[in-house]
Amino acid sequence: MTDRTEPFDAVDVIRTKRDGGRLPDEQIDWVLDAYTRGVVADEQMSALAMAILLNGMERAEIARWTAAMIASGERMDFSSLSRPTADKHSTGGVGDKITLPLAPLVAACGVAVPQLSGRGLGHTGGTLDKLEAIPGWRAALSNEEMLRQLEDVGAVICQAGSGLAPADRKLYALRDVTGTVEAIPLIASSIMSKKIAEGTGALVLDVKVGSGAFMKDVDAARELARTMVDLGTDAGVRTVALLTDMSTPLGLTAGNALEVRESVEVLAGGGPQDVVELTLALAREMLAGAGKDDVDPADALADGRAMDAWRRMIAAQGGDPDAALPVARETEQVLAPADGVLVGLDALAVGVAAWRLGAGRARKEDVVQAGAGVELHAKPGAVVRAGEPIMTLHTDTPDRFARALDALADAVTIAPEGSRPPEQPLVIDRVAAG
Amino acid sequence: MTDRTEPFDAVDVIRTKRDGGRLPDEQIDWVLDAYTRGVVADEQMSALAMAILLNGMERAEIARWTAAMIASGERMDFSSLSRPTADKHSTGGVGDKITLPLAPLVAACGVAVPQLSGRGLGHTGGTLDKLEAIPGWRAALSNEEMLRQLEDVGAVICQAGSGLAPADRKLYALRDVTGTVEAIPLIASSIMSKKIAEGTGALVLDVKVGSGAFMKDVDAARELARTMVDLGTDAGVRTVALLTDMSTPLGLTAGNALEVRESVEVLAGGGPQDVVELTLALAREMLAGAGKDDVDPADALADGRAMDAWRRMIAAQGGDPDAALPVARETEQVLAPADGVLVGLDALAVGVAAWRLGAGRARKEDVVQAGAGVELHAKPGAVVRAGEPIMTLHTDTPDRFARALDALADAVTIAPEGSRPPEQPLVIDRVAAG
Repeated sequence: MTDRTEPFDAVDVIRTKRDGGRLPDEQIDWVLDAYTRGVVADEQMSALAMAILLNGMERAEIARWTAAMIASGERMDFSSLSRPTADKHSTGGVGDKITLPLAPLVAACGVAVPQLSGRGLGHTGGTLDKLEAIPGWRAALSNEEMLRQLEDVGAVICQAGSGLAPADRKLYALRDVTGTVEAIPLIASSIMSKKIAEGTGALVLDVKVGSGAFMKDVDAARELARTMVDLGTDAGVRTVALLTDMSTPLGLTAGNALEVRESVEVLAGGGPQDVVELTLALAREMLAGAGKDDVDPADALADGRAMDAWRRMIAAQGGDPDAALPVARETEQVLAPADGVLVGLDALAVGVAAWRLGAGRARKEDVVQAGAGVELHAKPGAVVRAGEPIMTLHTDTPDRFARALDALADAVTIAPEGSRPPEQPLVIDRVAAG
Repeated sequence: MTDRTEPFDAVDVIRTKRDGGRLPDEQIDWVLDAYTRGVVADEQMSALAMAILLNGMERAEIARWTAAMIASGERMDFSSLSRPTADKHSTGGVGDKITLPLAPLVAACGVAVPQLSGRGLGHTGGTLDKLEAIPGWRAALSNEEMLRQLEDVGAVICQAGSGLAPADRKLYALRDVTGTVEAIPLIASSIMSKKIAEGTGALVLDVKVGSGAFMKDVDAARELARTMVDLGTDAGVRTVALLTDMSTPLGLTAGNALEVRESVEVLAGGGPQDVVELTLALAREMLAGAGKDDVDPADALADGRAMDAWRRMIAAQGGDPDAALPVARETEQVLAPADGVLVGLDALAVGVAAWRLGAGRARKEDVVQAGAGVELHAKPGAVVRAGEPIMTLHTDTPDRFARALDALADAVTIAPEGSRPPEQPLVIDRVAAG
């Protein structure tokens, strides 16, 4: 029952994957092109996505799928820049504001950072939502504006245009409503199709592992990292991945303006130790990927060059780096329930609480509150006293406190004094080509 | 992210099944109701169907799914009839015209047969397509016409109204285009929801096994039979299933008018031995289910009562039982390629050939040719001589012969004289309640 005007029938493609087979290259090319054209229907693509989720894909199959997604749209070209390029992608975590200090830091070290970002959905925040807390800052740039800023400032964080991998845009929206997000081949090809089409020379992947991450266990995270590193390498992008801990939030803030404030502290030479450590670790990988192994990013952080780059990056996109950041109208303290040592502070619970306070959105069309979120006063390892505040919740709409507190009900674990939290390095593993 | 006006989120339901869990009763009720209302989208239901296909369902889960499909529409009620009711369902095969002689035969034995049938799609023919080859016969009856005919004649074969299990109608169309037809829970619930809603007292299932059937192997067929018998039994319908052979076509014809002609031969006391055998076996099961174990249907076939019931059944729906049947405009002979014994005649190949000749449809909107099809002159076990005709192909459109012959390229296996075809009983197994 092949359609008379198309070379394949979507049902045959679906059946092949349903029955555990490998999709032939021509069928992959066709199904993604036909889906973008609207010839393959949403209900057919979602059945195929579920079959891929449950039956998997081989390495070469994922590479072809990614190439077909790239072929659905335009590719960017940074070869005219006087500097090498390097980009970073995080799979998303609670309090993950690393892009904000990282992009200007790497730019200050002589490598251009073309960071195309998205908005948040669910309990992990979006980089654009965070930057939009800065008065005047705008996310949408033309390709020409982006190139000019990369040449002048060296760093740009902006909204991805609709021209890159439109098949992915359509497929991602479909996966979101059909329970087919959690498929490693589809996650990897979604991320990598955009990064490869973006045309960066080097790429560092921050694959989060733990309760606040998409990947809850390290084996799945390693498989995702390996799949993405292979895809990037095969496409000529120098790609490396770090597996990093997301069992507890990064830094002391989760929420848009709260995270901008913390990022500025890091750029000023302070800030929480874990944010600084991860920013430097990722910066070193980006510089190495761009051929600048000899540059130590700690110097650019210490001597104020990273902060200069930040101020110019924000100003170039209409933002006022000196403007006061929005503050939520209401706050509520969360108190320690007992004396002891804080041995657990669950990332997912904090992320959900921040989301419920208004920092994130449940639907694409929701508006976020710039000031909302969770501020932490203690991290695992800290000694706490019963009745002392361990978190402050921020929101413009105090009727949200109750549901945020619900989310936090089991977030905190306190053990008797002298206890220690489980040993957990921030950077768990490194996955490189080969 | 639960929708504010609905008790569940489709994504949560999909995820449960995707991750191998059992769907809670309330979620099953909701998802089928919401799908019928259009709140659950096609792309969500197809992802769920694929997850069901790959991860299965428990017995109680299938029963609840079936009940929810029944609840989506109306139920019929035959309790006002003076006779018990019994129905038959076949999973579909090549040359399977059994319903045509069976319904009047059982009616002639004092049991009412309310047979709601469908049209063919793909290589298996539809009962309504076959009867529509009879000049004047109409498939669409109102519920009142159906009840009156059941009382007066005792048998009715008509189109299922759109009021029975509308969720199934919508889901079946979706499964057809999303590669999710071949899921035992979905096949079983689709068939049984309509039969239970139809309100028959007894039901015999003819589950076909072999190349020309939906189920290619006997274990899968037995699982489907067991699932359906359990569903019927649990719903208070006396249900039994026969597993019957479909490795070779039933009888000597595949095609609409050709099969009506053969059915009339059976009602006249002649016809191919396998068609007679299966008609009597199914009639005995239907009579037993309706409490008439003591009646031998062979008598009603021999003494002409079944033929009388046929003539009245056809006439009651506007058909002329004496009218000449349509004949295709063109024929072509297929000759035996060698001397020997015919040991294999592949059902699927013959079914596809008949379909390509115009007897079936590739799309719902296609029109079938009443006269098209394949007539067999030899069945497995027959001695054949090279150059003798073993089949005649019939069509109104002779450009179809080439593709039909392609389908038949490997259909026939001839072994040296003295060989025998593999031993294969027509009725392979019987699956009853318990």
